[in-house]
Amino acid sequence: MSEVSQGGRQPTIREVAAHAGVSPMTVSRTLAGGVNVRPDVQQRVLAAVRELGYHRNENARSLRPGQASGLIGVAITNLGNPYYGNFALGVEEVAAEYGRRIVLGNTGEDPARERQLIADFIGRQVEGLVLVPSGGASDHLQPERLGDIPIVLASRRVYGLDVDAVLLDDVGGAYRGTRALLDAGHTRIGFLGNVRSVFTGQRRYEGFARALAERGIEPDPDLVQREQQDVESARDAMRRLLDLDDAPTAVFSSNNRNTVGALKEIGRRLKAGADVSELPAIVSFDNFELAELMPVPVAVIDHDARQLGREAARLLLSRLGGVDRRGPARLVEMPVTLAPSSTD
Amino acid sequence: MSEVSQGGRQPTIREVAAHAGVSPMTVSRTLAGGVNVRPDVQQRVLAAVRELGYHRNENARSLRPGQASGLIGVAITNLGNPYYGNFALGVEEVAAEYGRRIVLGNTGEDPARERQLIADFIGRQVEGLVLVPSGGASDHLQPERLGDIPIVLASRRVYGLDVDAVLLDDVGGAYRGTRALLDAGHTRIGFLGNVRSVFTGQRRYEGFARALAERGIEPDPDLVQREQQDVESARDAMRRLLDLDDAPTAVFSSNNRNTVGALKEIGRRLKAGADVSELPAIVSFDNFELAELMPVPVAVIDHDARQLGREAARLLLSRLGGVDRRGPARLVEMPVTLAPSSTD
Repeated sequence: MSEVSQGGRQPTIREVAAHAGVSPMTVSRTLAGGVNVRPDVQQRVLAAVRELGYHRNENARSLRPGQASGLIGVAITNLGNPYYGNFALGVEEVAAEYGRRIVLGNTGEDPARERQLIADFIGRQVEGLVLVPSGGASDHLQPERLGDIPIVLASRRVYGLDVDAVLLDDVGGAYRGTRALLDAGHTRIGFLGNVRSVFTGQRRYEGFARALAERGIEPDPDLVQREQQDVESARDAMRRLLDLDDAPTAVFSSNNRNTVGALKEIGRRLKAGADVSELPAIVSFDNFELAELMPVPVAVIDHDARQLGREAARLLLSRLGGVDRRGPARLVEMPVTLAPSSTD
Repeated sequence: MSEVSQGGRQPTIREVAAHAGVSPMTVSRTLAGGVNVRPDVQQRVLAAVRELGYHRNENARSLRPGQASGLIGVAITNLGNPYYGNFALGVEEVAAEYGRRIVLGNTGEDPARERQLIADFIGRQVEGLVLVPSGGASDHLQPERLGDIPIVLASRRVYGLDVDAVLLDDVGGAYRGTRALLDAGHTRIGFLGNVRSVFTGQRRYEGFARALAERGIEPDPDLVQREQQDVESARDAMRRLLDLDDAPTAVFSSNNRNTVGALKEIGRRLKAGADVSELPAIVSFDNFELAELMPVPVAVIDHDARQLGREAARLLLSRLGGVDRRGPARLVEMPVTLAPSSTD
C-alpha cells in the first residue's frame, strides 16, 4: 500500500523538495511541465514525488486568488480528420511547454454542440480557449460573454467577432492552385467545397473564382459543388461532376475530406474499366498521406496543421499575462505552398 | 458589458433555473452534458445561462466531498497518427455522454513524458485515466500509486499491471493476414514492425511467426525489421528489404506507420522505373484511407479505432460508480477483419 492510503495524510511539497534535495519552486516547475529545470533534476523530483506518493492538487490551487486552473479548452470540428489531430497535437505541445494541459472537445461541425462545449469549458475555469468555429451565430463567443477568458480562433474566423485568429492563406492558395490548372490548359474546372457558411470554404471559392475571372471565365454552376462535409457526400458530388455530358477535365478540391471522396470515385471508375486518361487531374487544398501514389496527378496546396496549432497556442498564451493581455485582436495568416505530388 | 463584470457578483444556479423556468437539477444536468434533458429544454437553459452570464465553477464543485472533477485524463502515444485521433474521438464521445471532458496529452512514445503526464493528471484530480502505454517500467501505473483513480489501458497492455484493458485481436489478425499471403503462394515474406518492447509489436510478430511455423517456415532474420516507429524509418527498412539479393515477394506490415513508409518506398521505385510486377504485395495491420488506390495490392487487417476508444471509455466509466467499481480487472479484445483492398 502507498503512503497516501496510510492514515490519509498527503505529503507536502516541502517534504518532496527535501527528499529530492531541491527547492519547493523546482518541484512546482517540474510538475508544471519542467520548463527551466534540467532533465536530471526533473527525474530526481519525479522519483521523490513517486516515493512519497505526492499528489499536486491543481484544483485547490486554481481556487486561490490569482491562481489559474492550468487548463486550455480546445474545441475542434472533427478529430477524426488527421488534419485536426495534428492541429490538436501542436496546441498540446506548446501548452505543455508552459505547464498547461488541454481539455479537448469535438463539435462535429454542430453549432449547438459548440455552444454547449464552450459553456462547459467556462464552467471548468479554463484559462483560455482555442476554437475551430463551426459557423453560425457567435453571441456565445463575444468577449463580454467570455469575461476575462481569451479566445483564439483557428482555421476559420467568425464574422463580427473581433478576436485573435490564426488562418491559412486560403484565398492565395486557392488562387495559385487554380491558376496552375489554367496554365496547364484546363478551362472546364470543377470545384468541390464545403458548406457555404464555413469561412474557409468561402475564402477558397473566392481564390478559385478570382483565378478564373482573370482569364475571363465565369464559373459554370454545374461545375461547382459546395455542400460536402464528409467523404461520402464528396464522392457523390464527384460522381455528379463526372457524369456531366461536358465533364470537367480538372477538379479543384478545397479540403482534405473532399479530396479523399473525389479520389474514391476515381478509384471506383478505374475498377469499372475507365481509362485513366479520361479522368480529371486534381488540385487539393490540404495535403494527405501517399498523395504521390494516386493514379491521377494530384497537386497539393500544403500547410502544416501542427504549426497552425502551435501558433494558435502561442497567441493564446501571450494573452495570459504580460503586456499582450489586452492588446488589439491579432490576425496571423500562415503560408501555404503549392507542390506537385512527389515521393519526397 | 455583461452582468458578470458589473459589480462582480456571479448569478447563482437558482437564478438561472428560475429564469429558464426549470429546476436547478435540470440546469446542472444540462451543463453536465444534457443527459436526460430534452433538447428544447437544454436550449432554454443555455439561453438563460448566456443571458445571466452564469459560469459553473467545476473546480469548486470538485472540492466538495463526494464531488468529482468531471475530467478524464487521456494519454496517447501519437496524436499525429490518424488512428489515435479517431481513438481520442471515441473516448471523448462517450465521456461527453456522461458529462465528462477529456484532458489530452501526447507522450510521443516517451516513457518519461508518460510518467510526468500521469503525475500531472493525478495532480488535476482526474476521475480516471485512459492510457495507450509507451512501454517500459510501470511502477507509476500501479494501483497503489494511482490511489482511487481507475485506469484503462488501450491498444497495449503492460506486463505486471493488472488493470482493465481494451486490446485488438493482434495475434489472430496477424496470423490470418500472414496465412493469406502463404495461401497465395508466398514463402519469402518480410516483416515490418515497431520496437520489440511495444506490446502490440510483439503480439503481431507472434501471429506472423505462428502462421509461418504451421507451414514449416522459420522466419529469416534478414526479412524481419522490427525497430521502426515512424514513416521515415519504415521507409528505410523497406528499402533494406527490397535491396536484398533474395528480396521478399510479400511484406507483412504490422501498423499504419510502417505501411505508409513501405508504400512511399514502393512509390519511389516506381518513379525510378521499377516494374510494378517486381514489387511485393502488402498486408497491412491497420487500415488507411485510399488503400484501394495503391499501385500494389494492399490487403488490410481492419478495425475501428473510434470503437476502441468508446469501449475504453465505457470500461472506465463503469469504474466510477456502482457495482463495477472494485471488480477484478477486465480484458476486452476487439475483433479485426481481414479484407482485400476495395473501393468501398
